[in-house]
Amino acid sequence: MIRVAILGATGYTALELIKILLRHPEVEITVLTSRQEGSPHVSSIHPQLSDRLDLCLENTDPASVAERVDCVFCCLPHAASAATIMQLLNHNVKVIDFSADYRLRDQATYDQWYGGPHPDPDRLGQVVYGLPELFAEEIPTAELIANPGCYSSTSILGLAPLLRAAMIDPTSIIIDAKSGVSGAGRAPKLGTLFPECNESLSAYAVGAHRHEPEINQVLSHACHQEVRVLFTPHLVPMDRGILCSIYAEPTGTCSVDELMQAFRHFYEDQPFIRIVDHLPATKHVSGTNFCDITVRVAGGRVIVLACTDNLIKGASGVAVQNFNLMHDFEQTTGFEA
Amino acid sequence: MIRVAILGATGYTALELIKILLRHPEVEITVLTSRQEGSPHVSSIHPQLSDRLDLCLENTDPASVAERVDCVFCCLPHAASAATIMQLLNHNVKVIDFSADYRLRDQATYDQWYGGPHPDPDRLGQVVYGLPELFAEEIPTAELIANPGCYSSTSILGLAPLLRAAMIDPTSIIIDAKSGVSGAGRAPKLGTLFPECNESLSAYAVGAHRHEPEINQVLSHACHQEVRVLFTPHLVPMDRGILCSIYAEPTGTCSVDELMQAFRHFYEDQPFIRIVDHLPATKHVSGTNFCDITVRVAGGRVIVLACTDNLIKGASGVAVQNFNLMHDFEQTTGFEA
Amino acid sequence: MIRVAILGATGYTALELIKILLRHPEVEITVLTSRQEGSPHVSSIHPQLSDRLDLCLENTDPASVAERVDCVFCCLPHAASAATIMQLLNHNVKVIDFSADYRLRDQATYDQWYGGPHPDPDRLGQVVYGLPELFAEEIPTAELIANPGCYSSTSILGLAPLLRAAMIDPTSIIIDAKSGVSGAGRAPKLGTLFPECNESLSAYAVGAHRHEPEINQVLSHACHQEVRVLFTPHLVPMDRGILCSIYAEPTGTCSVDELMQAFRHFYEDQPFIRIVDHLPATKHVSGTNFCDITVRVAGGRVIVLACTDNLIKGASGVAVQNFNLMHDFEQTTGFEA
Amino acid sequence: MIRVAILGATGYTALELIKILLRHPEVEITVLTSRQEGSPHVSSIHPQLSDRLDLCLENTDPASVAERVDCVFCCLPHAASAATIMQLLNHNVKVIDFSADYRLRDQATYDQWYGGPHPDPDRLGQVVYGLPELFAEEIPTAELIANPGCYSSTSILGLAPLLRAAMIDPTSIIIDAKSGVSGAGRAPKLGTLFPECNESLSAYAVGAHRHEPEINQVLSHACHQEVRVLFTPHLVPMDRGILCSIYAEPTGTCSVDELMQAFRHFYEDQPFIRIVDHLPATKHVSGTNFCDITVRVAGGRVIVLACTDNLIKGASGVAVQNFNLMHDFEQTTGFEA
Repeated sequence: MIRVAILGATGYTALELIKILLRHPEVEITVLTSRQEGSPHVSSIHPQLSDRLDLCLENTDPASVAERVDCVFCCLPHAASAATIMQLLNHNVKVIDFSADYRLRDQATYDQWYGGPHPDPDRLGQVVYGLPELFAEEIPTAELIANPGCYSSTSILGLAPLLRAAMIDPTSIIIDAKSGVSGAGRAPKLGTLFPECNESLSAYAVGAHRHEPEINQVLSHACHQEVRVLFTPHLVPMDRGILCSIYAEPTGTCSVDELMQAFRHFYEDQPFIRIVDHLPATKHVSGTNFCDITVRVAGGRVIVLACTDNLIKGASGVAVQNFNLMHDFEQTTGFEA
Repeated sequence: MIRVAILGATGYTALELIKILLRHPEVEITVLTSRQEGSPHVSSIHPQLSDRLDLCLENTDPASVAERVDCVFCCLPHAASAATIMQLLNHNVKVIDFSADYRLRDQATYDQWYGGPHPDPDRLGQVVYGLPELFAEEIPTAELIANPGCYSSTSILGLAPLLRAAMIDPTSIIIDAKSGVSGAGRAPKLGTLFPECNESLSAYAVGAHRHEPEINQVLSHACHQEVRVLFTPHLVPMDRGILCSIYAEPTGTCSVDELMQAFRHFYEDQPFIRIVDHLPATKHVSGTNFCDITVRVAGGRVIVLACTDNLIKGASGVAVQNFNLMHDFEQTTGFEA
Repeated sequence: MIRVAILGATGYTALELIKILLRHPEVEITVLTSRQEGSPHVSSIHPQLSDRLDLCLENTDPASVAERVDCVFCCLPHAASAATIMQLLNHNVKVIDFSADYRLRDQATYDQWYGGPHPDPDRLGQVVYGLPELFAEEIPTAELIANPGCYSSTSILGLAPLLRAAMIDPTSIIIDAKSGVSGAGRAPKLGTLFPECNESLSAYAVGAHRHEPEINQVLSHACHQEVRVLFTPHLVPMDRGILCSIYAEPTGTCSVDELMQAFRHFYEDQPFIRIVDHLPATKHVSGTNFCDITVRVAGGRVIVLACTDNLIKGASGVAVQNFNLMHDFEQTTGFEA
Repeated sequence: MIRVAILGATGYTALELIKILLRHPEVEITVLTSRQEGSPHVSSIHPQLSDRLDLCLENTDPASVAERVDCVFCCLPHAASAATIMQLLNHNVKVIDFSADYRLRDQATYDQWYGGPHPDPDRLGQVVYGLPELFAEEIPTAELIANPGCYSSTSILGLAPLLRAAMIDPTSIIIDAKSGVSGAGRAPKLGTLFPECNESLSAYAVGAHRHEPEINQVLSHACHQEVRVLFTPHLVPMDRGILCSIYAEPTGTCSVDELMQAFRHFYEDQPFIRIVDHLPATKHVSGTNFCDITVRVAGGRVIVLACTDNLIKGASGVAVQNFNLMHDFEQTTGFEA
């Protein structure tokens, strides 16, 4: 059994992570931490876990955690995450980091988008980006994984096959992304109150969302060309789900069949990517680790539609995929059929 | 034109109040206050009001406000409200108070339920409860009105006719109440975040909601008998709307027709009460000042179903009804047909 | 491996059933039927199942089905269900019936509430009611199980311990029940269109819901006393979840602790019942087979709050519990930890 | 008083239309029609209208209607609408048509997108498109108005100022549009059931939505250039609201200020267009006749965000604007401040 800790266990991604790990036959959750006062039982934070997990949340003490676990899922905020992870790695604990701290390879980019300076600049550029469909070779031997952003992974999965096949112009890409509200986290904020979000829809952070440089970096790196997307996120009145409607100019004349074929070929052996003929809905992937993708051609443009559950394939599910690869388990261990 | 101020203008009830008052032919909104930093334009707080109201929010200075208005709608929190109102009344300004500060007539009850002591105990017991369907005679001459709680008014409107007609046992009443989330206010709280409320339903404050003593007091007073209800509120994943499902034991054998007749008779000339044959839905009254009521008999019990828009008939709409009565306007002035 | 068929596989309960059965290590789904034209692939009906189940829906031919399966989950409509089941039982196939056809033990009651005559009256009164927490002894040897109604099981689970312990008056019970919209099925109807249900709440079938006689029969039978409840269902704008707010008069003076103790004792070894101290929310059980229950005392009455996922514990989950008991598997086989 | 009829009065747009017209000081609703059996009272179809409008729905008999009204709002389906309108116009009744029958000027385009042949081809090309912000000069003298589609008007309002000012390339336009479910109408369909739409999001009719040729035609005509947009609609889990996120390539280098200025100038005297600095949300315009618009520049592209209430500014509100212009009333008559 691999003993694991979840640091920052009060949020929505942590809850989904716990639910997956409780199903995982090779995992024992031994430590949960948070900044809560006292040491509340996890079921008082997540009543969903009543009678399912008997642990109390403790403060985050990296040295103490490292003694009791083999692997850490770190759900701490940006900057706090890297500061903690530096200590964990010194104790030979494997870490999967949900924050953005190690996603960007370039320190200046990090400082610009996250209000640096980065606490651990020396590791930047050496950390594996944990998207198994693209980086399955690097993940198994990594000590530290930068778990992808939810918008980022959905967008990258919808674009990589066409960029690799040189079927779309890498400078023409527009990603009109829509997300459920859980993506904004569990800290009380005016903007995510029920009466603010319900029966409403809006764009936010237009031209200024932190996942845009992340998408550009990963796609440029993985597809060996300079990719520069325009990314516009929207907040949709639902709990979960991301849909990316992606527009790009084709490099030549390619049919829908050829585009679909490129996707099917690229994801041939991937258990969590479903290339579908119909237009996917977020509900089709809700509660699962699937990413459903289809492609169309209209008005002289390629349109890719890709959707995921932002808390699972967009966060905790992909983290467990990474965990499985790092520990030589089947990628699908812990997931439903 | 009556010049009015709205104190505590950042919340949901204030927004609805402003929207009604903008339609009111005899009102000019001259002052808005809040505890916000700076003096933000109202449209930055309520973008709905862009191009519709050109006012900035100022700090709440009762003396200054009193100089510039004839009537104040006070949407401040409990206790803060009474402290401010005491000063306003000294300046001969009429006040409609949305807080609970003057609703309960008994100081001990207030102190018990609201963590007293009350800032203005001498006025308790003398303030008119602003439910026009019951107290239309006292309202016109009042200087200060205690605007009813949203659950309270819906419950009282569903019970008063049957209690007055002695058709139900005043000690047998169970009110199973359900409310949309806007009733919980606009201050960010974990419990009203979208991902907490959406796709969920629960009871709260069972046997411990502050509207229970309010309902008991008003019904006992208005119906001349000792009324003691059991009140259970529930939070429903919708913006607005209250539905009270009310159960009571009949005092004798009475048919649905007789019960309906009692309602129709009691509310004969009331423009905002609709006695309907069908089972009312909150959507039928959403955005309006109507209270829809019907009654059934089943299992030897009387079942009343009453619904309102909690922000309008349950708060800002009834406040404008009170305002109209206090200023000798038609009760319906400012409302849609 | 037990080979199973799902008859009437196009609805929401069938989808949840398939998802559970795909996780079940001892089950192979071999037949799906429906009244659809042609023989569509199941993923065209339920896109959630893309790449997960490779079966086409066929017409319902009982003799042909019986040859290819060991057990049938029958999700057909009332009356059609019994007509089909009569044939299946002749072929020695075990059946779990989701319809109400075999729930009521008395033919006259069936005919009154379901517009009889019953197609198979001789079996009435002999069929085991599939609520494992009450009837675990009869279920293992049954050939045919009447799977409970969703409101019924939630209500019964919330009442049986107190009735058995004679702690509440069996004639004083009021069940104010609230359900998500999926309980109304997947056939297009005006009343369940999104713009009708969303942002709305209403009672329906007041004093006239078919689950009322079912609850009365099962509780009277199981608790050896004449139980007669008043049952009022409400439609809530959410996909899933049932919350029953149950009011009853105590027979003596009993504390909350004693009531909680009665629940904990009664459900001591039950893996899917969680007696919780907090007020349960439907979201806590959404997607699971749990029933969360708590109890309070207020206003001289006992208040029980019980909630389930109507599609799982209220339908497909309990069906798999029954299936497990009928086939000598652990009750929890196929379910998450 | 202008006497008006509403043909096809059972839908969501008809309900909103009635609510606006009840506020209109110069209108009397005298006829409502539908294809319902019998002649139900309007409050049995729309319980919102209980005690507010005392009319029964009758069958649609154009000659009889024409005798009793001065103006008809026609909410009939495509093709049925033109067939009825031909008769109404013969009786010298003014008509505002909510269907698409007279929106497209070219018969071949109509036949292609609506499965023609058109019942009244001779009038095509001569009917005024009822978007007052663009065609205020033609509307007052028109006998027949083609009321715009909801997606169309929102898109056109967001693009016309920039096209007229030649600030964007007319062949580069991508409209990623999102709509609430009420836009799909009130006829029961699987796709608009609550459990299908709620907690889900998807694109539909990609490259194949009927509003695409309508947008192209109107913008080409109004802006004197060949406009060809790519239009992708999405279904969002909310009742009402349309948000169009519009991407276009600038023709030169223009700043956000210049773009905003172009919008403010174009809509200078328009009472229902609000050019806002913030990112608009559909909730800001819900229940109103406003269209909120802002513009940004990012990634070398112009991004326009425009939102409306699809049932009001997108249908019934703009219809009353047209009605007002046709009858020489202020455009804002019948609307809130």
